Amino acid sequence: MANSKYEYVREFEQSDALLKNTWIVVRIDGRGFHKFSAKYEFEKPTDKRAIDLMNGAAAAVMKELPDVVLGYGCSDEFSFVFHKDCALFERRSSKLMTTVASTFTAYYVLLWPEYFPGVRLSVPLPTFDGRTVCYPSVENLRDYLSWRQVDCHINNLYNTTFWALIQRSGIDAREAEQRLSGTLSSDKNEILFQLGINYNNEPEMFKKGTVLYRNFELQTLNPATGRKASSTLTEASLAAPTREVQKPSKSAAEREKKTKAKAGIAVQHIDLIKDEFWECRPWILTGKVGRLME
Amino acid sequence: MANSKYEYVREFEQSDALLKNTWIVVRIDGRGFHKFSAKYEFEKPTDKRAIDLMNGAAAAVMKELPDVVLGYGCSDEFSFVFHKDCALFERRSSKLMTTVASTFTAYYVLLWPEYFPGVRLSVPLPTFDGRTVCYPSVENLRDYLSWRQVDCHINNLYNTTFWALIQRSGIDAREAEQRLSGTLSSDKNEILFQLGINYNNEPEMFKKGTVLYRNFELQTLNPATGRKASSTLTEASLAAPTREVQKPSKSAAEREKKTKAKAGIAVQHIDLIKDEFWECRPWILTGKVGRLME
Amino acid sequence: MANSKYEYVREFEQSDALLKNTWIVVRIDGRGFHKFSAKYEFEKPTDKRAIDLMNGAAAAVMKELPDVVLGYGCSDEFSFVFHKDCALFERRSSKLMTTVASTFTAYYVLLWPEYFPGVRLSVPLPTFDGRTVCYPSVENLRDYLSWRQVDCHINNLYNTTFWALIQRSGIDAREAEQRLSGTLSSDKNEILFQLGINYNNEPEMFKKGTVLYRNFELQTLNPATGRKASSTLTEASLAAPTREVQKPSKSAAEREKKTKAKAGIAVQHIDLIKDEFWECRPWILTGKVGRLME
Amino acid sequence: MANSKYEYVREFEQSDALLKNTWIVVRIDGRGFHKFSAKYEFEKPTDKRAIDLMNGAAAAVMKELPDVVLGYGCSDEFSFVFHKDCALFERRSSKLMTTVASTFTAYYVLLWPEYFPGVRLSVPLPTFDGRTVCYPSVENLRDYLSWRQVDCHINNLYNTTFWALIQRSGIDAREAEQRLSGTLSSDKNEILFQLGINYNNEPEMFKKGTVLYRNFELQTLNPATGRKASSTLTEASLAAPTREVQKPSKSAAEREKKTKAKAGIAVQHIDLIKDEFWECRPWILTGKVGRLME
Repeated sequence: MANSKYEYVREFEQSDALLKNTWIVVRIDGRGFHKFSAKYEFEKPTDKRAIDLMNGAAAAVMKELPDVVLGYGCSDEFSFVFHKDCALFERRSSKLMTTVASTFTAYYVLLWPEYFPGVRLSVPLPTFDGRTVCYPSVENLRDYLSWRQVDCHINNLYNTTFWALIQRSGIDAREAEQRLSGTLSSDKNEILFQLGINYNNEPEMFKKGTVLYRNFELQTLNPATGRKASSTLTEASLAAPTREVQKPSKSAAEREKKTKAKAGIAVQHIDLIKDEFWECRPWILTGKVGRLME
Repeated sequence: MANSKYEYVREFEQSDALLKNTWIVVRIDGRGFHKFSAKYEFEKPTDKRAIDLMNGAAAAVMKELPDVVLGYGCSDEFSFVFHKDCALFERRSSKLMTTVASTFTAYYVLLWPEYFPGVRLSVPLPTFDGRTVCYPSVENLRDYLSWRQVDCHINNLYNTTFWALIQRSGIDAREAEQRLSGTLSSDKNEILFQLGINYNNEPEMFKKGTVLYRNFELQTLNPATGRKASSTLTEASLAAPTREVQKPSKSAAEREKKTKAKAGIAVQHIDLIKDEFWECRPWILTGKVGRLME
Repeated sequence: MANSKYEYVREFEQSDALLKNTWIVVRIDGRGFHKFSAKYEFEKPTDKRAIDLMNGAAAAVMKELPDVVLGYGCSDEFSFVFHKDCALFERRSSKLMTTVASTFTAYYVLLWPEYFPGVRLSVPLPTFDGRTVCYPSVENLRDYLSWRQVDCHINNLYNTTFWALIQRSGIDAREAEQRLSGTLSSDKNEILFQLGINYNNEPEMFKKGTVLYRNFELQTLNPATGRKASSTLTEASLAAPTREVQKPSKSAAEREKKTKAKAGIAVQHIDLIKDEFWECRPWILTGKVGRLME
Repeated sequence: MANSKYEYVREFEQSDALLKNTWIVVRIDGRGFHKFSAKYEFEKPTDKRAIDLMNGAAAAVMKELPDVVLGYGCSDEFSFVFHKDCALFERRSSKLMTTVASTFTAYYVLLWPEYFPGVRLSVPLPTFDGRTVCYPSVENLRDYLSWRQVDCHINNLYNTTFWALIQRSGIDAREAEQRLSGTLSSDKNEILFQLGINYNNEPEMFKKGTVLYRNFELQTLNPATGRKASSTLTEASLAAPTREVQKPSKSAAEREKKTKAKAGIAVQHIDLIKDEFWECRPWILTGKVGRLME
C-alpha cells in the first residue's frame, strides 16, 4: 500500500537546528514540585534525599550523553551544558531537550526507591519540562551558570530563614513571610543568628547547589600567580577556528568516549562563579578529555 | 545579594510559541528501541506487552493533559494531538513537547513491572525524544494521522512476513530480507498464506495501532445516508471564528475538566482514516466534552 | 583557489520557511513617514498624491508577483496577501518580505516624479520595513484585513477632525489633541459637523483605504438570497486537500500567468469587511484566474 | 468604532529577535540581475558603472544606519555587518533585513541616472532580496567575509577569462564554457596571458570587490612585529562582558553618531582576509568611533 498520498504532511515539520558555535544549555524544571514535595512530605527547608535523587538522575544523564560537559542543579531544576562544537542530533533543539527531559525523568522514577525507600510513587508522577538556550560566548555561559548559582543561594537563604522562623520561633507561614518582606541578606543572617543558626555552617549542598562534570585530574594553578601558565579561560584559546575543528577519527572518538566513561562523574557542591573552578578543570570548556585519575 | 549582574542572560531565551489556530501534534519516538527490544527479548514480530505498556503510558499522558484530544500510537512511537484552540503553556513548543516526553517516560518506567513482571529495568533506560508539528487544517491533521496508520500497517505487514519466514521457513534474517526486497503487499500476503498465516486474522492491535480519545457516547449516523445531519467534519463548522472563542468561565472550565476525567480514555484499535471514526466522535475535533456514557 | 576553508560559514544560515497551507501576509510600513510627510509638505489630513503613489507602487508589486492575490493599503502601510498554496521562494520568509519591500520601494522612488512633479526627492529617501505573518484560516485572514480597514477608518476620522479643528477653528495642535482626547466616533462626527464637514462625504479613498486585486469579471449574487449558489467563503470549499493540489502543468501555469497579466489590477476604495466583497470576487481566495472582462 | 473584535489577529505575529551577542550579517542580492544586466547592456566582464552604483547605494545605507560597522560587496550582492552589541529594532530580523533591502533599493533607483546617464530605467525595476545570518565569533564573521571575497576573486577570474576568450579569440559562449570546464586558477591565468592579459593588472575593484567602513585614521602597526601592541583581534579583548556593556548616555550616543557622520564612508578595494585590515581599523570590531582624520 502506497503511503505517498499522505506523506506530504512531513513537509509541515520545521527545522529547529540551533545556531552553530554557541553553547547550548538545556534546563529542566520540576512540574508542580511545590505540590509534589508537599505530597511526599519533603523535609524543610530542603530535603537531602530529594537533592541526592536529582543529582543521581543528572549524573545518569551525563553518563548517557557524553556531549554534556557540565551539569548544574539546585532545588527542582537542572541545567545541562552542551559544548559549542556539539553536533549531536544535528543540534536540533527538539531532540536535545526532549532527550534530556526524558532521560532525566526515567532515572528519577527508577531511582526513587533508592532515595525514598518505602515511599511509593503514585499518580501524578514527577515530571520535568525543559527548554534550550544558546550562549555565544564563554562569558555568557559562565554568567548563566553564575546566575543560577546566585539564585540558588538567594532562595536557600530565604527558605532557611523562613523555615527557621516557623520551626524555631513558632510563627506561621504568613507571619514568616511578612517578617521577611523587604529584608536584605544581612537581615536574614541576623534573624538566623538569633534563632541559633549560623548560615555559614549550613550544608554546602544547599548553599551552592550541585556541579557535575567528568572527573579528570584537577590542574594545579601556578602557586605564585594563582594562575595556570596558559589560562583556559580566554575566548582566544578556546575559539579554535570552527573551520579547523578536526573531526576526530571514528576510533579516536570511540577512545575518547571510553575515557570519558572511565572518568566517571564528579558531584560537587562548590563555587563555579570564580575563575578557579574553570582554570582547574580546563577540559570542561575545551570539551576534550582530561587526565584520568590514578 | 543582588542577582542583577548576571540576570541579563535571560534575554538569550528565544520565544517559541506555536502559530495560533493550528492543530499541534507532539510525536515521541523511542530512542534506540531496536537495541532495547533485543535486550529485553521482545516477542517477534510484535510484543503485546510492550504495546500495552506504550498504551498505558499514553493513556496516563492524556489523563494528565486534558488539552490532548487524541493519541495515536504504533510500535515505539506515539502522537498526541492538542486542539487548535489549545492555550496550554501559551503554546510554547518547548514546554509542550518536553512535558509530553517526560510524562510519557515517567509512566513507562513506573508501569514497566506491571507489563513485564519479573523483568528488571537496567541501564540504559527506555527514553523518548519528541517534536512538535503544526497542522493548519483538519484535513492536514487527519492526513497526518492517516499517514501514521498506513505506516503502521506497512511496517506490520513487513515484520509479520519477515518473522514468519524466519520462524516458519527456517531462513535467516539476511535471506528473509532478500526474499522481501521489492515485494508488494499482495506478495507478502501470499507468502504469509503459504506459511499458513491469514494476515486478516492478525490482531487489530498490530495492524491498526492504537487510538486513544476521551470515552464519550458514540453518535449514531443517519442510517439512510450513513452521515450525521450536521457533519462535524467540515472546516466551516469547526472554524468558529477564533475571535469568538468564548473562554469558558473558570467554573465551567473546571466542570469540563471533571467531565473529561469521568469519561476516561478509550483505547481502540480501529480505522481512523475513514470519515466514520470522526463523525461518530465529534468531540475530538470540537474539543468540547461529549455525553458521558451511562 | 579553493573556497572550502571558509565555506563552512554557510551552515550558520537558518531555515525560515513559513508553515505550509497558511495565508501569508507581508505588511510594509513607511519608515519615519511622519517626518517625511512634513519635509515634503504633504497636504493635511491626507495627501491624495501620496496615496496615489502608494497605490501605484503597490499595483506594480502585484504585477511583478502574480502570487499576491490581494493588496490592502492605508496611509503609509500596505499589506500583500500570498495565497495559502503559494510556493514562491519555497515560502522563505526572508525572500518574501525583502522582495516585497524592495520592489515596493523601487517603484515608489521611480514613480515619485509622476505624482509629485517638480518635487525632488532628497536624502533621506522614503523607505519601508516589512514583516510576514501567517494566518491559518480564511476567517483569520479576513479578520486581519478587516482589522486594517477598521484601523484606517479610526485614524482617518481622528485626523480629519484634528486638522479641521486646526484649519477651521484656528486652535493649535496641542489644543486639538486635548479637544479630541477621550472622544467617541459620534463626538468627532459632531465636531466635524459643527465645522461644516459631513464625514460621510469625505473621499472613500481616505475612509476605506485601497484594495487591489486582479481585475476579473465580478460574479453577481443570487438576487433572491443575495448569495451565490455555491459560496466561495466556506473553508470547506476552499480547503481542497493540500495533498490534492494539482500542480498545473508548466504550460498551464504560463497561460494562467498571462491571463493574470491581462486582467490588470483593480484599484478600489471599498468595504472588504462584509461577505459581499469576497463573494463577488471568488478568484481572490481560490487563487485561480477569473473571467477576463470584455 | 472599536477595533477589538479583530485585533486578536496581532497575536499571530511571531517574534524573530536574533540571538544576542552575535554578529548580524544582512546580505542582499540582486534579483534576476543576469537578465537585468543584459537589458541595460552592462559591459563585460564587469561594468564599472554598475559596481560604482552598488557602492554608492551601499555607502548611503551605511550613512543612514550607523549601526552597520562594515559593508562588503561584489557583483550584484552586498553584505552589511551589524555589531554584535547592536540593539537596533530590538534585533528583529525582519526589520533589519527589510530596512537594508529597502534603503539600498531606494538609493539604487535614485542614483541610477548619475551612473547611467541617459539610460532610463524601465519595468521591471532593479530589486534586491535579503536575509540575515548570525555569527557568534569574530572568527566566524571574518571567515564569512573572507568567503565572500574569495568567491569574488573566483568569479571574477572566471568571468574575465570567459569574456576574454569570446572577445579576443572569437569563440562563442558555449565554446568558452567548454574551454574553461575543469580548469584551475593557474590554467585561467595562462589562458589570459596568451590572450595578452595579465590578471594581476586587472582593476582591484573587480578582483577584490568593495569594502566600506567609517573612515577614521588608520592605526599604524608596530614596525618590528608588524602588530599593534594590543591587538584588537582577539575575542578576549572584544568580549567585554555583554553584561558590562555600558549603554552610553543619550548625549554621548548623539556625539558618537555625529562623529561617525563626520568620518564619512571609506570605499576601498582591498584585502580583508589578512589580519592587517582589521588591526589597522580597530573601530570596526569594537564598534566605537576612531580618531577623525584631519
